[in-house]
Amino acid sequence: MHQMQKFLGDLKKVLGENAIIDSSEQVAYKTQETCHVTHQPQGLVYPSSVEEVQHIVRLANKYKCKIFPCSRGNNWGYGGNNFIDTDTVVVVLERMDQILEVNEKLAYAVIEPGVTYEQFNHYLKQHGYRLWIDCTDGPPLGSVVGNALDRGIGETPYGDHFGNLCGMEVVLPNGEVIHTGGGSPHHPVKTWHTHKWGLGPYIEGLFTQSNFGIVTKVGIWLLPEPEAYNSYIFELANNGNLGPVIDRFRELALQGIVSSKLHLVSDFVSLTILTQKMKEALPPGHIRKEELEKLRRKFGFAIWSGGAALYGNKKQVAIQKKILRRELSPYGKFLMFSDKSVRWLETLLSTCNKSSLLKKAVERLSGRSLTMMQAIPYVHGILKGIPTSYFLNHSYFKLSLDRPSEDVDPSRDGVGLTWFAPILPFTSEDVVPYLTESRTTFEKYGFDFYMAMLMLNPRSIICLMGILFDKRNSEEVKKAQELYDEMFDKLNSHNYQQYRTGIACWDRIWRESPELSEFYSLIKSAIDPNQILAPGKYGIN
Amino acid sequence: MHQMQKFLGDLKKVLGENAIIDSSEQVAYKTQETCHVTHQPQGLVYPSSVEEVQHIVRLANKYKCKIFPCSRGNNWGYGGNNFIDTDTVVVVLERMDQILEVNEKLAYAVIEPGVTYEQFNHYLKQHGYRLWIDCTDGPPLGSVVGNALDRGIGETPYGDHFGNLCGMEVVLPNGEVIHTGGGSPHHPVKTWHTHKWGLGPYIEGLFTQSNFGIVTKVGIWLLPEPEAYNSYIFELANNGNLGPVIDRFRELALQGIVSSKLHLVSDFVSLTILTQKMKEALPPGHIRKEELEKLRRKFGFAIWSGGAALYGNKKQVAIQKKILRRELSPYGKFLMFSDKSVRWLETLLSTCNKSSLLKKAVERLSGRSLTMMQAIPYVHGILKGIPTSYFLNHSYFKLSLDRPSEDVDPSRDGVGLTWFAPILPFTSEDVVPYLTESRTTFEKYGFDFYMAMLMLNPRSIICLMGILFDKRNSEEVKKAQELYDEMFDKLNSHNYQQYRTGIACWDRIWRESPELSEFYSLIKSAIDPNQILAPGKYGIN
Repeated sequence: MHQMQKFLGDLKKVLGENAIIDSSEQVAYKTQETCHVTHQPQGLVYPSSVEEVQHIVRLANKYKCKIFPCSRGNNWGYGGNNFIDTDTVVVVLERMDQILEVNEKLAYAVIEPGVTYEQFNHYLKQHGYRLWIDCTDGPPLGSVVGNALDRGIGETPYGDHFGNLCGMEVVLPNGEVIHTGGGSPHHPVKTWHTHKWGLGPYIEGLFTQSNFGIVTKVGIWLLPEPEAYNSYIFELANNGNLGPVIDRFRELALQGIVSSKLHLVSDFVSLTILTQKMKEALPPGHIRKEELEKLRRKFGFAIWSGGAALYGNKKQVAIQKKILRRELSPYGKFLMFSDKSVRWLETLLSTCNKSSLLKKAVERLSGRSLTMMQAIPYVHGILKGIPTSYFLNHSYFKLSLDRPSEDVDPSRDGVGLTWFAPILPFTSEDVVPYLTESRTTFEKYGFDFYMAMLMLNPRSIICLMGILFDKRNSEEVKKAQELYDEMFDKLNSHNYQQYRTGIACWDRIWRESPELSEFYSLIKSAIDPNQILAPGKYGIN
Repeated sequence: MHQMQKFLGDLKKVLGENAIIDSSEQVAYKTQETCHVTHQPQGLVYPSSVEEVQHIVRLANKYKCKIFPCSRGNNWGYGGNNFIDTDTVVVVLERMDQILEVNEKLAYAVIEPGVTYEQFNHYLKQHGYRLWIDCTDGPPLGSVVGNALDRGIGETPYGDHFGNLCGMEVVLPNGEVIHTGGGSPHHPVKTWHTHKWGLGPYIEGLFTQSNFGIVTKVGIWLLPEPEAYNSYIFELANNGNLGPVIDRFRELALQGIVSSKLHLVSDFVSLTILTQKMKEALPPGHIRKEELEKLRRKFGFAIWSGGAALYGNKKQVAIQKKILRRELSPYGKFLMFSDKSVRWLETLLSTCNKSSLLKKAVERLSGRSLTMMQAIPYVHGILKGIPTSYFLNHSYFKLSLDRPSEDVDPSRDGVGLTWFAPILPFTSEDVVPYLTESRTTFEKYGFDFYMAMLMLNPRSIICLMGILFDKRNSEEVKKAQELYDEMFDKLNSHNYQQYRTGIACWDRIWRESPELSEFYSLIKSAIDPNQILAPGKYGIN
């Protein structure tokens, strides 16, 4: 019998039949993914405890079979729970979904990898904790831990997700369990979740964007509910203002005036959230400039739109508002929102929905479509840690079926979306020419230029590009691949890199740095001699 | 010939005679240290370039000789450039002291391990950069990189020194060089010094508090000169206020009102900075409560004194002041200082030095000794990155010779000082009982209770204890050892740990966590099969 069959057989014996999925049909259903590269594994296994994870790892070593761990598998556009090798069993940690501790005084929680943004936010609200989570604008059912381990980014001052992890429990590729930072496993040190670096070498970074272990528990720092909170939308008056705005935002971030993870999105991104291509009767290929201008006027969104928020003491927030307006008003328009004004807006919007006359009046007065205004409460919400599937709308833009109003799942619905996620120094000299060049490359292949800039820290900005394509159109899938490859090579030639990558490029991310690749291999061979744990993930073998 | 002799001989051939010190007398002079544990190595070698570091590492592998790298060797009280093994050559990186780049726009610099705080601050001022370094209150000739790699802590919002490193060049134990984060060595990615996590596993933490490589270059983030700056001293009215003050400071730090690395020191610490034991005609053994009270009145310092600062826009700083006063005034007294008021104070102090009448008047009016007031400009200075040797005064407290007014060097002058540096959750429930217990233990062995609490982050506080002893008194050295050992065991029994340790306990720091120790060994064996690089450092073999 094939080793893989023995492995799956033993897994069933040890974990029980209903912890394994291995029928080809079900596996295919469970591993659908939006990326242009996909692979179908041999099976999926759903452990319920650390001990079960250890069993899986030990059996994988016994049979020399590859396993690929994922938290919940919702890493859409980077590969989801797909892996570069089909001869693999995916270990899905979604059944390990306990919130083990919440410490309000020290503003942290301890959670398992299966915990979702939605569940986490709900739990804190339900129990009356005055702590906010940081979510992304991605799936509310995404894993908090999974995103942090892939070093994803959120919205609030706690938006550097890995930066706010503190204290990990990890199952090593040999099946042993370690607790980072020291102390005994049964009596971990009391600073395990308060002091990020622990004692001795700081090793938690080893378990991010890699294949050195399976993280089964983390401490995560939470934002204490501030006395005052204001979200804002900043709309650029024209494309020429982009450079100065980037530089002003860097300066404000270095001064601590901007502490949330500013998102600055192109007009095309706004469009994808508000409507679908088929509804606007657009011709094939990428949207022309004039068409986009027309749609901007129709919906009332700007050429570039920023979203961010202010947190703190009432007076502090008032001063930050003043400084922001002073520094940025020359380049565009501010819309500021408090909880109160958002409630007021929501009432207005729901009334408008009942009266077309009122709707028209409001749209005329504001210069914005009701559709566009409906986005505001969601922006206000995610900036205070309330997840929503609203922004996933964007991924359905090219799909020729109506997007669902609930149970949104782009991978199930056949969406084609691959992320390309460069990170650049936070200066207009770096960003503006790169954007110009990237737009040309996207349009050369017939794709719309989807650009969402996300501030990672005051010195670095992510230039996230979404390649939206029709999965059923094999020609377009091929073009998506070609575009991705050209973007990848161009990025390297400029000495930039991505902040996070997916299966589409793991075969070549260390092309320019063989000495790093060798160092990773030394560690990998030492801790995973049978190469069972996701070999090739992030290019590590 | 002994392998060590061959190694030293080859080092001389390759690096030149004057790059090596190996006469027993000179080695002894160069490796003096304040800690109660000391060892004399076989020699010291001073490379001038990365290539020379690589040569040293390769020769060490050839002869299977141990090397122990240090930046400048000023890690007083933790072991300096001493190592747990005498059969070692110390690699001192002080000749590699270039400031390679300063980027004002992105607020970072790139420096080598030999760069000192004094040099770094001077360089930025001299070239007119509007960037501040973060220094410690330790030696101005200490290494910026060395302190960060041992995860030391400073004063400003950039005081988590390792937290503000970004991008490293490292010589591995096999002699290869890696550049963290990716990109080619000759064309590193442009975000090398702006994006801390890089791409792929984040490995920089591996090279801190460990023996996995020799860091030869780092990027370091700098604080942009704020529009407004105010330092403050906060004096507790009584010991009972300590608990509430700790909790208020935690809350203020979590809210972002306190962002500098608050130092809160005991009366004994204040005393050691202001005078020496022999000058106060104190009896042997630890100072009694009544004596200390008398000295408090004489010099005018408080039972607990805090030092911190406010940085930002003028209005922000004004609000922070108001909030601080509101929250903390019930527990003690604030003294706020601007650059202007410090200049004014300095003028007053120098005038007082010329007139004993004026001196008396000022002392009466302020309720403080001139000696105490003279400390203020130094506190104000280090909180804006200006290093000083003023605070090293404390280490000379027990010495029976006058402390030097310049060229301060406790290790050369025979000072006995060992640091014991626990880190605790930032709550009064954790800190207060632990302090009470520790005081009792210190006094049991006849030592004064030296306690400096340093905020590492809003969730963790370092409770730094200095064991001050007379190096020439072997009985006292033995007692220092016994105190250290008891403190170590007690800390473990409470499930706390140190944030940083020295040679005095590397033999037992992983006693409670064998599984971590094994994991480190797996990595160590893979990347340093000959165990040439500081085996045993931080307990890693």
